[in-house]
Amino acid sequence: MRDRVYLDWNATTPLRPEARAAMAAAFDISGNPSSVHSEGRAARKLIEDARGAVAAAIGADPRNVVFTSGGTEANALALTPGLRKGSGEPVQRLIVSAIEHPSVLAGGRFAQGAIEIAPVLPSGVIDLESLAAVLASGPPALVSVMLANNETGAIQPISQVAALVHEAGGVLHVDAVQAFLKIPINIKALGADILTVSAHKVGGPKGVGAVVVADGLEGLRAQVRGGGQEQGRRAGTENVAGIAGFGAAVRAAADSMDADVAWMKTLQVRLEDGLKDNRGTVIFSDTAPRLPNTTLVSAPGLKAETAVIGFDLEGIAVSSGSACSSGKVQPSHVLQAMKADPALLRGAIRLSLGWDSTEADIDRCLEAWRKLSGVLGKAHAIGLERF
Amino acid sequence: MRDRVYLDWNATTPLRPEARAAMAAAFDISGNPSSVHSEGRAARKLIEDARGAVAAAIGADPRNVVFTSGGTEANALALTPGLRKGSGEPVQRLIVSAIEHPSVLAGGRFAQGAIEIAPVLPSGVIDLESLAAVLASGPPALVSVMLANNETGAIQPISQVAALVHEAGGVLHVDAVQAFLKIPINIKALGADILTVSAHKVGGPKGVGAVVVADGLEGLRAQVRGGGQEQGRRAGTENVAGIAGFGAAVRAAADSMDADVAWMKTLQVRLEDGLKDNRGTVIFSDTAPRLPNTTLVSAPGLKAETAVIGFDLEGIAVSSGSACSSGKVQPSHVLQAMKADPALLRGAIRLSLGWDSTEADIDRCLEAWRKLSGVLGKAHAIGLERF
Repeated sequence: MRDRVYLDWNATTPLRPEARAAMAAAFDISGNPSSVHSEGRAARKLIEDARGAVAAAIGADPRNVVFTSGGTEANALALTPGLRKGSGEPVQRLIVSAIEHPSVLAGGRFAQGAIEIAPVLPSGVIDLESLAAVLASGPPALVSVMLANNETGAIQPISQVAALVHEAGGVLHVDAVQAFLKIPINIKALGADILTVSAHKVGGPKGVGAVVVADGLEGLRAQVRGGGQEQGRRAGTENVAGIAGFGAAVRAAADSMDADVAWMKTLQVRLEDGLKDNRGTVIFSDTAPRLPNTTLVSAPGLKAETAVIGFDLEGIAVSSGSACSSGKVQPSHVLQAMKADPALLRGAIRLSLGWDSTEADIDRCLEAWRKLSGVLGKAHAIGLERF
Repeated sequence: MRDRVYLDWNATTPLRPEARAAMAAAFDISGNPSSVHSEGRAARKLIEDARGAVAAAIGADPRNVVFTSGGTEANALALTPGLRKGSGEPVQRLIVSAIEHPSVLAGGRFAQGAIEIAPVLPSGVIDLESLAAVLASGPPALVSVMLANNETGAIQPISQVAALVHEAGGVLHVDAVQAFLKIPINIKALGADILTVSAHKVGGPKGVGAVVVADGLEGLRAQVRGGGQEQGRRAGTENVAGIAGFGAAVRAAADSMDADVAWMKTLQVRLEDGLKDNRGTVIFSDTAPRLPNTTLVSAPGLKAETAVIGFDLEGIAVSSGSACSSGKVQPSHVLQAMKADPALLRGAIRLSLGWDSTEADIDRCLEAWRKLSGVLGKAHAIGLERF
């Protein structure tokens, strides 16, 4: 049997060796970071070292980094009604782009009636004119736009978004979970007022994330309360080993980012050239700037849920572009927002690469795509998929 | 130099070898538990195995276990307005005992005005008559009483509390974080409707906890939203390795609980007999049933924050009975609720033992107590502590 091929790095990455080593070392620290004795201070030091690593990778001040249990909780915490810049007006409404992650679409602590959607263009990039119109239609808002989309990889024009938001007196949240350490990020250069990241997308463990605030942002209130940890912004004994693993992964990923990105770009070209050799195969957001590792592809008549299982049986882990909830597969809200061709909507497969991906992985994937897009696409066309 | 003595097991325990091994194995699973491919299903299996272990240790159904990022988040989630038993009235007010953990005192998602306090007796045990009066003073309530107090170790009469609460049409939350696997727990026998536990108090990793609901409880709403994980009750990619470590720790702790408890009781008798040999030394909640590992002690004139540092310099990790927040040491809310002697209030030191504690640890601690309670107590009495 041939080795498995893992092409689902956007769902979660393998743990980096540096993160594993940092976590193993943290396992020997028995103290609680809130304790004042030596064991407690040793645990505290691991957390503060990791905080420094995350802050450095984002160009932020370490005291502005709040650790959470992951990207979803980080987004929920970031979306706090009442955020304000300095003496600005506290925001009481939320504008989210139509292609945000479900944890942003859920709206954090904003009431459902206070949430508005900003549309995207068919390229999968936010429609800046429409955003300006939504901003102009009401009082200053918190606006949430992701740096890169997790399904298509499309990179959003955050600096332009920031200019519009700030001109309208608003506050900008950037979900950088998927883009972090795949493209350079500097919170000041981006113009983000609050930004969120996750460990398990950069080679750290699952279950750790962070909120990073820009200088001058006020009004972040804890969602999980009842302890003074994280300067009162997130209560609960810290996931010491996980945070140490996050810090180590960030350091390692930052060190190798240039080389990793160059390698992933090489593989992405090989992958997409090969995919396009198949008649009818379409790559979404092909015209937009995209992450070096993300390719969302479809073929007419293909059903993604069947294709993912087909890939799995061929030894290849890929993801459907659709969100699956309680067993019922829904068409991707991202592709719907992009007004994608209905014939392609149900068949979207996300191929996402990482630093350890190989040319052989790509070739195995292309072989499987040729087989599955032909067989399954044709099966659908003649109504066989029910058998 | 002599080895360090760790007597702060209630703050956090060392990681059990079984938990460490389970986490190391989980590090090799690259999948996201929400993914349908083999790698995803392997991660899912680790979580479901752990869920079974936690459920079994509490006498609950695995589908009623919701993993969180720790005890604090578990308490915040459990304290949900609108909980109800079957066709009962949804609760809209919260009654908490005066000695609850800060994460319970914070009240979860209840408004501050909807939270009432039930007093305790000087023994540190809840005052059942007063609780009945608070219950009778308004509509059905969610009542939160911990199974054992984290500072004194006093075990609360939960079955009697449950009878009162249910007679009044209410719902009972039991914070079992500190008692879990130190005394037997069965959610049905206790009469709890919702119960919370934490991994790092039983030899699992920091940053993992769980909410366990009893059959028939309705109305638990996710606090962290935007994903279908944990049956829609807690969104976000799961801390797979941490949860696997939690499950392994629970299995190991359950297997050795009888032996561990017998050993800790032996050590506790040795410790408390030795402490009482010092004139003026007082053990709190001495008349109440207590955990086998927890001793809260004070001496007249002692200042806990100074004593903790003194112990640390002697190579012994202990905790003050006081909560420390933003550098300012406050007298323990637990001892204040017990109406403890003001001369003893500031000097409370918590000595908490674990399965790996030794007779030599106890003897070192007693030696240090004799020295510190004498010197520091006397220093205070003549006003030297400012120098």
